[in-house]
Amino acid sequence: MLRVAIVGASGYTGGELARLLCSHPSVTVTAATSRQYDGQSLAQIFPHLRDQTDIVCKNLSTAEIIDLADFIFCAVPHKTAMDVVPDFLDAGKKVVDLSADFRLKDVAVYEKWYQPHSAAALVKTAVYGLPELYREQISSAQLVANPGCYPTSITLALAPLLKTTLIDTSSIIADSKSGTSGAGRAASVGTLFCEVTDGFRPYKVGGVHRHVPEIEQNLSELAGTPIQVSFTPHLLPISRGILSTVYVNCNETVSPEHLYSLYQTMYQGQRFVRLLDPGIQPATQYVRGSNYCDIGLALDERTNRIIITSTIDNIVKGASGQAVQNMNLMCGFPEETGLEQVPLFP
Amino acid sequence: MLRVAIVGASGYTGGELARLLCSHPSVTVTAATSRQYDGQSLAQIFPHLRDQTDIVCKNLSTAEIIDLADFIFCAVPHKTAMDVVPDFLDAGKKVVDLSADFRLKDVAVYEKWYQPHSAAALVKTAVYGLPELYREQISSAQLVANPGCYPTSITLALAPLLKTTLIDTSSIIADSKSGTSGAGRAASVGTLFCEVTDGFRPYKVGGVHRHVPEIEQNLSELAGTPIQVSFTPHLLPISRGILSTVYVNCNETVSPEHLYSLYQTMYQGQRFVRLLDPGIQPATQYVRGSNYCDIGLALDERTNRIIITSTIDNIVKGASGQAVQNMNLMCGFPEETGLEQVPLFP
Amino acid sequence: MLRVAIVGASGYTGGELARLLCSHPSVTVTAATSRQYDGQSLAQIFPHLRDQTDIVCKNLSTAEIIDLADFIFCAVPHKTAMDVVPDFLDAGKKVVDLSADFRLKDVAVYEKWYQPHSAAALVKTAVYGLPELYREQISSAQLVANPGCYPTSITLALAPLLKTTLIDTSSIIADSKSGTSGAGRAASVGTLFCEVTDGFRPYKVGGVHRHVPEIEQNLSELAGTPIQVSFTPHLLPISRGILSTVYVNCNETVSPEHLYSLYQTMYQGQRFVRLLDPGIQPATQYVRGSNYCDIGLALDERTNRIIITSTIDNIVKGASGQAVQNMNLMCGFPEETGLEQVPLFP
Amino acid sequence: MLRVAIVGASGYTGGELARLLCSHPSVTVTAATSRQYDGQSLAQIFPHLRDQTDIVCKNLSTAEIIDLADFIFCAVPHKTAMDVVPDFLDAGKKVVDLSADFRLKDVAVYEKWYQPHSAAALVKTAVYGLPELYREQISSAQLVANPGCYPTSITLALAPLLKTTLIDTSSIIADSKSGTSGAGRAASVGTLFCEVTDGFRPYKVGGVHRHVPEIEQNLSELAGTPIQVSFTPHLLPISRGILSTVYVNCNETVSPEHLYSLYQTMYQGQRFVRLLDPGIQPATQYVRGSNYCDIGLALDERTNRIIITSTIDNIVKGASGQAVQNMNLMCGFPEETGLEQVPLFP
Repeated sequence: MLRVAIVGASGYTGGELARLLCSHPSVTVTAATSRQYDGQSLAQIFPHLRDQTDIVCKNLSTAEIIDLADFIFCAVPHKTAMDVVPDFLDAGKKVVDLSADFRLKDVAVYEKWYQPHSAAALVKTAVYGLPELYREQISSAQLVANPGCYPTSITLALAPLLKTTLIDTSSIIADSKSGTSGAGRAASVGTLFCEVTDGFRPYKVGGVHRHVPEIEQNLSELAGTPIQVSFTPHLLPISRGILSTVYVNCNETVSPEHLYSLYQTMYQGQRFVRLLDPGIQPATQYVRGSNYCDIGLALDERTNRIIITSTIDNIVKGASGQAVQNMNLMCGFPEETGLEQVPLFP
Repeated sequence: MLRVAIVGASGYTGGELARLLCSHPSVTVTAATSRQYDGQSLAQIFPHLRDQTDIVCKNLSTAEIIDLADFIFCAVPHKTAMDVVPDFLDAGKKVVDLSADFRLKDVAVYEKWYQPHSAAALVKTAVYGLPELYREQISSAQLVANPGCYPTSITLALAPLLKTTLIDTSSIIADSKSGTSGAGRAASVGTLFCEVTDGFRPYKVGGVHRHVPEIEQNLSELAGTPIQVSFTPHLLPISRGILSTVYVNCNETVSPEHLYSLYQTMYQGQRFVRLLDPGIQPATQYVRGSNYCDIGLALDERTNRIIITSTIDNIVKGASGQAVQNMNLMCGFPEETGLEQVPLFP
Repeated sequence: MLRVAIVGASGYTGGELARLLCSHPSVTVTAATSRQYDGQSLAQIFPHLRDQTDIVCKNLSTAEIIDLADFIFCAVPHKTAMDVVPDFLDAGKKVVDLSADFRLKDVAVYEKWYQPHSAAALVKTAVYGLPELYREQISSAQLVANPGCYPTSITLALAPLLKTTLIDTSSIIADSKSGTSGAGRAASVGTLFCEVTDGFRPYKVGGVHRHVPEIEQNLSELAGTPIQVSFTPHLLPISRGILSTVYVNCNETVSPEHLYSLYQTMYQGQRFVRLLDPGIQPATQYVRGSNYCDIGLALDERTNRIIITSTIDNIVKGASGQAVQNMNLMCGFPEETGLEQVPLFP
Repeated sequence: MLRVAIVGASGYTGGELARLLCSHPSVTVTAATSRQYDGQSLAQIFPHLRDQTDIVCKNLSTAEIIDLADFIFCAVPHKTAMDVVPDFLDAGKKVVDLSADFRLKDVAVYEKWYQPHSAAALVKTAVYGLPELYREQISSAQLVANPGCYPTSITLALAPLLKTTLIDTSSIIADSKSGTSGAGRAASVGTLFCEVTDGFRPYKVGGVHRHVPEIEQNLSELAGTPIQVSFTPHLLPISRGILSTVYVNCNETVSPEHLYSLYQTMYQGQRFVRLLDPGIQPATQYVRGSNYCDIGLALDERTNRIIITSTIDNIVKGASGQAVQNMNLMCGFPEETGLEQVPLFP
């Protein structure tokens, strides 16, 4: 049994890692850290986990974590992550970091959107953990930077097209909608029930959300040319789920069959991508609680645009599920181990 | 007191007309029709209206309606509307029709998206009831075609820009999200609570929603040139509210100040449009139950796009509230009469 | 125009007072206080109030409030209220206090459930502000203690029965369910959207909620004999609304007609109580946004129990609406002024 | 692999059986029936099941079902069930019937609350499928009547007390609240999203819900004496979950420790009952998607009442999960097989 630590276990992604790892036959959670809930069991912090785990959250030092675990999920906020990851790596541990700290290859870009980077040298060695695109590199990585939720949904939506010359890469618009769990479990007025329920709003409009550089890095790498996008996030009155509606102009006339075949070619055999039949659209509720990314395709023949819609559970495929998927690859477990939850509907 | 009929009183727009007219000092509802609920009081069909109205819904003939009322709100589905509106007009009644039957000026376009038109001659005489744009014409109209909910939100979002040459009119993308009341009160599996709650989905993707020709008619008329748009509707797990996120490419560099001034110029003095300060975004919950349209502006300087976000309550400004606003204009009442409800939050 | 102050304007009850007073023709809000949001306009704190009010929240001293207003709504938490109310009264102002500080007639009981009382002498002079029961006393009061939300729903549900000898007063059980706005607008993990939505829970089970003594005081006074009740509150995933299901054992056989007549006798002519026809049950959504209390009656003939169900909007009839109703009585305005909002459904 | 049929696969309980059986290593679904969706794959009817099952729903005859399967889940409505179950039994199949048709031991009672029974002789042979109470009998049964959702939550809440003389069995009041999935997937106005969301209501108040006789049968059998209860169901704006708040008067003074020990004794070793520590209350969201029943205990010392709160996922432990649990017992599989889903929160 692989001894696993969850660093930052009291947030929603930490709790979700615990939920998923309960079903994983080859690992055991030997450490779970929390400053705020030091001394409380994970089942007190997350009562749905009663009888599923005995682990008690503690305010552990990095040395203690290193002593207790061989594989480390780092689920603390950016900035905090870069402070602890180097020690874990030095101790020979494998790490999946769920923060933004090791996602951006260009440290200058990181520092423009976040703050100074204290572990810049490690950025080069980190592998971007989107298994559908980088499975090989992940398998041999010591440090995997787990993708952001919005970038996961948008990158998987566009990847097949970016390998072609079909589309005008200056025309990409991603209109994304996220459930509220993406905002985390910290107390705040803006995410109170009464502020969110029965409502809907955009935020960080105009290309100012921190996921913009991550999205553009992914798309540019796939296309082999610099790409800028317009990205608008919105807050949905649901707990889990992201749905991105992505618009691109075509350089030429595309048939629905050809469009579909591009996606089928890329995603056949991918366990966690479900390409929907033409005419079918995804819905967040059909991936709830699962590691699936569902993708729908449409052509607007009148305006010669392609509209791709993709949906994930933001704390599974958009965070903790993808992290477990990366761990599986890094450790030689079958990729789907612990991730076979059927979506929960209704 | 103006004697008013609500034809089709048992749907959500019919119920909302009744709610709004309860607060209107110059009208009295003298007829409310329903086939399905013939003989039931409106307060039985809509228990929130208990003690507010004594009206009983009946399956009235057009002759009976004509006898009972001097002003008629037609809140039945398209096709049914065109069957009864001519009789009302012949009898000298003023009519606001909430269906799509008299919105599209080009009957051929109507017939392509809907079905054959049996009252084509009347289309020319109908005035499109968006008071912020067509107040004068509405004031002297006998028949007003009340706008669709999506077109209202998108047209008000774009009108100030279409009067300029700032934007590339071939670049317009409207990504809209609507509450479930827009689907009506008929029993259907797709709008059951369990199918909709805690979920989100696009529908009619690829320019196939029937509001497309109405949106394009409005924008083309404002710009003075044919415009095609990409329009994608989505279903929100909320009762009331539409929020449209509209993207346009700029032909030149625009300053935030100039952008704001365009909107300020057009909407100052408009009682029901609230232009938000730069940096502020709208939210459906802040217009809930009111006749407001809230509009937010943003520039994505990196991609040189303008993003306009607009929100309305789909059954107030998007349907019944706008219908009352039109009635006020048609009858010489102050435009805001009966429409001064403060939004309900939380 | 009566000059009115809202002390504690940034919470949900403060915001709701502002919403209601916008529609009140005889008052003007001349002061709104907030420590946390000092200097922000009420429309910034509550964006639904844009264009409705120009008032700016300030951290005002009691002297400043006294200078600015003639009538004061005190919407601050208990303990804070008792610190400021005496000064307002000394200055000759009329006050409706929405906290618990002046509701309990027995100071010893107050101090057992809350904390030491610093203005005990005033308790005797305060009138309990449930207009349906104490209209006369309220009309001549200088200080009105606005009832709690749960006590309002339960007291109105039971009052007609307590004037009779029909029921076993030792058998009363009140199972109440409240929307989340009752928990206020302060940031807290327990009322985050993701913690509350798609869920339901009891809290403070076993007679330990602070509304227990208030409920028992009301019922005891009505019956003229000491009464103890079992009261269980629950948290609903809705913003607004309380529904109480109240069970009592009958001392004798009661007919449905007699039961109904008791309620009809007591509540006829009461503008804000809607007694539902036999067989009809209330629902929170039918009173949303209004000052109504809807009451339904049922007999369980097999067990000889009466089940009364009553519902209110917890921040209207359960707080701010009732406060305005009290103000109207205290100031000689018609009781329903500013409170004629039709419930908002759906 | 056991060949299993789901008769009535297109409702929510049918879909949930399919979800759970996807994770069951010892069974394979070889037949799924639906009249309405004849010829559609289960993954079309329930898109969350894409890639999980290839089964196509067909309008199969009983003979065809008998030919295709060795174990049959009957998930059709009452009345329909009694028409097909006898044939399945005659053919030697084992059956779990999820309808009410075989739950009530007294056919006269059944016929009073439902309609004439056409398979009355089978009622005696059916075993009531509440494994925590009747594990032995279930293990050797050919026909198991799967309990109703409300009765499951209430019976498990009261069972430990009914084995004692601590409580007054004439005092039992069960105030229950259910998610909307309990109303099924048939189109109806009353369960539309807009009718249910942001609202709450009681229904069938006064002891008239059809689960009353089932609840009373269970409690009477446990106590060994006839018991009548007051039971009030309410509709929650959530998809999944029932929470019952149960009140009983004590015959004598009970200590919290003694109360807790009664439950601990009865439920220790029960895999799917989680007895909460004193002071902790359950919540529907902590059992969502799982087969758990969570039970909380409280004493109201002032009124000498015990308040038991119990929660289940109504379509797992309240229907399909319990059905799989029964199948496991009937077929000699470990009881928890296919039922180890961790609750999904948030």
